[in-house]
Amino acid sequence: MPAYATNMRFKFPIIALTLEILTIILYAVFVVYDDGKSSHGHHDDNKTEPAHEEDPLALYPMFQDVHVMIFIGFGFLMTFLKRYGFSSVGINLLLAAFGLQWGLLLQNVWHMDDGKIKVGIIHMINADFSTATVLISFGAVLGKTSPVQLLIMTLLEITTFCINEHIVVGILGASDIGASMTIHAFGAYFGLAVARMLYRPALRNGHENDGSVYHSDLFAMIGTVFLWMFWPSFNSAIADKGMPQLMAVTNTYFSLAACALSAYATSSLVEHKGKLDMVHIQNATLAGGVAVGTCANMAIGPFGAMIIGMLAGIISTLGFKFLTPILASNLGIQDTCGVHNLHGMPGILGGLAGIVAAALGKLESTDATKQAAGLACSLGIALVGGAITGFILKLPIWSQPPDQNCFDDSLYWEVPEEEEENEESLAHGDHSKNKTEA
Amino acid sequence: MPAYATNMRFKFPIIALTLEILTIILYAVFVVYDDGKSSHGHHDDNKTEPAHEEDPLALYPMFQDVHVMIFIGFGFLMTFLKRYGFSSVGINLLLAAFGLQWGLLLQNVWHMDDGKIKVGIIHMINADFSTATVLISFGAVLGKTSPVQLLIMTLLEITTFCINEHIVVGILGASDIGASMTIHAFGAYFGLAVARMLYRPALRNGHENDGSVYHSDLFAMIGTVFLWMFWPSFNSAIADKGMPQLMAVTNTYFSLAACALSAYATSSLVEHKGKLDMVHIQNATLAGGVAVGTCANMAIGPFGAMIIGMLAGIISTLGFKFLTPILASNLGIQDTCGVHNLHGMPGILGGLAGIVAAALGKLESTDATKQAAGLACSLGIALVGGAITGFILKLPIWSQPPDQNCFDDSLYWEVPEEEEENEESLAHGDHSKNKTEA
Amino acid sequence: MPAYATNMRFKFPIIALTLEILTIILYAVFVVYDDGKSSHGHHDDNKTEPAHEEDPLALYPMFQDVHVMIFIGFGFLMTFLKRYGFSSVGINLLLAAFGLQWGLLLQNVWHMDDGKIKVGIIHMINADFSTATVLISFGAVLGKTSPVQLLIMTLLEITTFCINEHIVVGILGASDIGASMTIHAFGAYFGLAVARMLYRPALRNGHENDGSVYHSDLFAMIGTVFLWMFWPSFNSAIADKGMPQLMAVTNTYFSLAACALSAYATSSLVEHKGKLDMVHIQNATLAGGVAVGTCANMAIGPFGAMIIGMLAGIISTLGFKFLTPILASNLGIQDTCGVHNLHGMPGILGGLAGIVAAALGKLESTDATKQAAGLACSLGIALVGGAITGFILKLPIWSQPPDQNCFDDSLYWEVPEEEEENEESLAHGDHSKNKTEA
Repeated sequence: MPAYATNMRFKFPIIALTLEILTIILYAVFVVYDDGKSSHGHHDDNKTEPAHEEDPLALYPMFQDVHVMIFIGFGFLMTFLKRYGFSSVGINLLLAAFGLQWGLLLQNVWHMDDGKIKVGIIHMINADFSTATVLISFGAVLGKTSPVQLLIMTLLEITTFCINEHIVVGILGASDIGASMTIHAFGAYFGLAVARMLYRPALRNGHENDGSVYHSDLFAMIGTVFLWMFWPSFNSAIADKGMPQLMAVTNTYFSLAACALSAYATSSLVEHKGKLDMVHIQNATLAGGVAVGTCANMAIGPFGAMIIGMLAGIISTLGFKFLTPILASNLGIQDTCGVHNLHGMPGILGGLAGIVAAALGKLESTDATKQAAGLACSLGIALVGGAITGFILKLPIWSQPPDQNCFDDSLYWEVPEEEEENEESLAHGDHSKNKTEA
Repeated sequence: MPAYATNMRFKFPIIALTLEILTIILYAVFVVYDDGKSSHGHHDDNKTEPAHEEDPLALYPMFQDVHVMIFIGFGFLMTFLKRYGFSSVGINLLLAAFGLQWGLLLQNVWHMDDGKIKVGIIHMINADFSTATVLISFGAVLGKTSPVQLLIMTLLEITTFCINEHIVVGILGASDIGASMTIHAFGAYFGLAVARMLYRPALRNGHENDGSVYHSDLFAMIGTVFLWMFWPSFNSAIADKGMPQLMAVTNTYFSLAACALSAYATSSLVEHKGKLDMVHIQNATLAGGVAVGTCANMAIGPFGAMIIGMLAGIISTLGFKFLTPILASNLGIQDTCGVHNLHGMPGILGGLAGIVAAALGKLESTDATKQAAGLACSLGIALVGGAITGFILKLPIWSQPPDQNCFDDSLYWEVPEEEEENEESLAHGDHSKNKTEA
Repeated sequence: MPAYATNMRFKFPIIALTLEILTIILYAVFVVYDDGKSSHGHHDDNKTEPAHEEDPLALYPMFQDVHVMIFIGFGFLMTFLKRYGFSSVGINLLLAAFGLQWGLLLQNVWHMDDGKIKVGIIHMINADFSTATVLISFGAVLGKTSPVQLLIMTLLEITTFCINEHIVVGILGASDIGASMTIHAFGAYFGLAVARMLYRPALRNGHENDGSVYHSDLFAMIGTVFLWMFWPSFNSAIADKGMPQLMAVTNTYFSLAACALSAYATSSLVEHKGKLDMVHIQNATLAGGVAVGTCANMAIGPFGAMIIGMLAGIISTLGFKFLTPILASNLGIQDTCGVHNLHGMPGILGGLAGIVAAALGKLESTDATKQAAGLACSLGIALVGGAITGFILKLPIWSQPPDQNCFDDSLYWEVPEEEEENEESLAHGDHSKNKTEA
């Protein structure tokens, strides 16, 4: 591929500005503030606390926790790569900033009020949720896609997500409060389908930049720990107030605690000389939050949540160790961040746990059939939607990176020269001060 | 300047302790807890929710969001410099810790109750706000001032800020809920006036330490992202409860989202080969929060907020690219962090948007004339106050750094030896283990 | 010690999984959700706000602040060591994740309801508190212990803590709202007793890895600043609603602000050429939060809190400069993080301040005798419990690190090769790409 093809100038700004201006026009026509006088019911209705309910900012602390997960959590989790930190946290911000605008619009077209979408905190939480799917898929294709491709993926994936969510929750009637199925499994398999379409044979034997350095692993831990801490907010933010919300918080909290122990234990068990592996710690410790999502608001008991979390930590760590290499070498699925292990399998585990819990009658509003249908639908739409999206992203017009420049910020970012120096030329005493250019 | 002149021993401790002891004495005389029985009205009075109002900690989550912006946000945003991270986050903490004590005192001398200042969460939020002005100005003079100078600047700037805020809001009656004028434009032009007074001809052609390294840019992104996420809290924290506060949150949220897109697009448009520039991403993505500040609680509509944000992102990025070099070379204003682009111009844009919104009747309590007067007053007092402060800081008694030691922590901090090694002597195989001394 | 003895394989996974499975069994038998229908009173009862009280998530934002202190605060504070960041933030997560499960169980065995422990947010806050003791002790032995030892320590220390807390608060009737005595002094002296038992003569003259690099000090500042910001939540989370909670917030806020000034001043005063020392800034700025803990909810006045904070900052900084070296050389107490200066002495200062405040009648429910008994009990049980724990940890079966591998992640973690390169071999032009193995 010729060098000029990777040049984003004009292509990227025009697409980004066009999307933004289009969005603003749609907002001018359709979106107003939620004055609380909607003729429809609210997602967060609560009959037992009328006085409290009137504060339109009651959910705001929950929203900010979720916001931190999206922008700090996902963003820094992906900074583990040695030369791809700018893209990880920077493009994460870009995609989420666009995605939340787009998601808020599409999630609410099904229930407009007098032709208007009324925006309150609950809608901002749901909009953040919609971006999570894209950020999960971003993990699968991290380092191998251009910002232009990723903007297109955001547009297509959030659109697909909104359709699937409407089918699963609105039509099939499945319950998925923490979104194990509709966000985690969906985002993972969508991303894996895209990654399959964008398969790069030249990366089969790895890439010298596809790895971490000591401090990049520490940056990633900022993401991990914020995700780990605030996951109870993710799973409970839109739960019904009172006991369901308390259960969603405590179940997630216990699942994550048990998951941390099993992830550490399994990592040490499968690694050379019993050492711990940062990849496992950064990711598999979070699998408990994913897996408990669907039944977070069900009366599974603290110990039930802990069992789910413990299993998720084991499965996720084993996936990183044994399954990811097989997917890459045998199926042509190059999953940079191992989202299959953090979101894919634990998401399915969460869906299955939801089926079992529903069969045991842990939540009145659903049953095992609805739950199974919801899981199947999420997986099917994710794979088809991802494959189509991947096909579109494969068109050679999106400034995609050449193989040798994968996992390298300097293709799309001005990078300070010292990094170059440290990595490549310090030993040669090269102290040139001009900016590096790919 | 002789080396001993930069030695802070005695000078710094004596000034810091004197200020603290003086503050404690004033607190002993004037400050008590807010028992909620004030005969004056509260800033956060809310007639519609009497029951909720009684919890004195209702605003506490908002306060903590603002707190994170002040200490993590501003602190880490400035760690982008390769050798000035200790000062950025460390002196930020020092100045804000002193500033909040001083600001809380001065902001409330105008409305004491029986000769006492009654402290509640709302006062702590406002105190944090007062420190923001100093931290903005700190960005303009970053790397070229001593901790002693900066403590003096904190004292003088917060005093000036409290006077200006009282005039603009209390006397002129302008509305400035998110403080585009009274904090952002004020802090920026105050700092630029100081920077002008402290002009260093020797730095005209740059300084080898006035730049980033790869990981320092990532540290800065911690600051950027926390500022970006919590800005809705900044603009809504002291808004009237109910719809005004909800509008302040959502307007800021949408303005920032649109701003992110336009900042990325503009950065790519003006940079070499369409690449993104970290300086723009770290700063210009936040301009939407600044610019929507004044009219955050006005009914400008989500799309109105998005238009303001989109414009702010463009203006800010263009400022970094084209205006900052001109200010430095033609006007002698060396603005280290480019606060003119993040806080100055977007602050004025916010003030102008407030004038327009007031003229359109978007908020009952104000009108275009009041708003224009508030903007003019803030700019005027900032420039005069900054110039006087800069004159005082120019006196050769504050241990200011020599030109060659600018942007270098090791002048005021014990710095571990490895950094020296990496930056200067690794290529020479120099592995000396003693502490570096300037 | 032979190399194989440090191999954790099997030992670590078996102990971690056994503890987790045991915990899950106990939870299955004893732990249920708090349905708010307890026949016992709640810690957070509040007669004045019945409506608000019914939301079981009212304390959730406070909980998340404390959660951030435990996992980000403590975790990153300890990343200052150049080659021990993985362990600092990673093992911190492991210990806290296990500790909170264990602590929640033991803290509530004294007040079960029909044989069940009912879990709500308040219990999750207290569980986080129980882990804080372990993380403080972890600081004393950081770099010189294996993950296996630390899991054992967590089990034993939290058990001891729960007994002491029950005696001090439940039986002796002392007040310790911010836990200066029961967490900070307890955790510090427990850890120092363990450190004494694990004394390593070979480290008497320091260790080449027992120090920081430039960026590791910046990572540590993430921990410092989050601890500094959220400490008011730590000290007020379980205070009675209304004025006591507001006082706990404001007292802590003012104490920390004053402490920051005095810590900076003292650091500059005692350091070479008046420079600031990162060790002091990272730690001593927090001593005000520790020292104001016991009397945080007492009417000591903002200026009283500031005096306590100012003294704590001075004592803590002087401790780092003058006392820590003496403890190491004369008493054989090698205190890696200087927890004696941050938690030990300020904790005792807090206990003493509580005695004085109680004697002055600042809190009705306690008196000076009860407070003095609480302090003495906490110190005594900590020292005895720590000594016994240290004796057990000295048994040569826990994969402890050999002296030369102390303060080095690569013994227990897979570490990326570049770090090796930067630190040791870059000057030699060694660019080997295989993983390092200890």
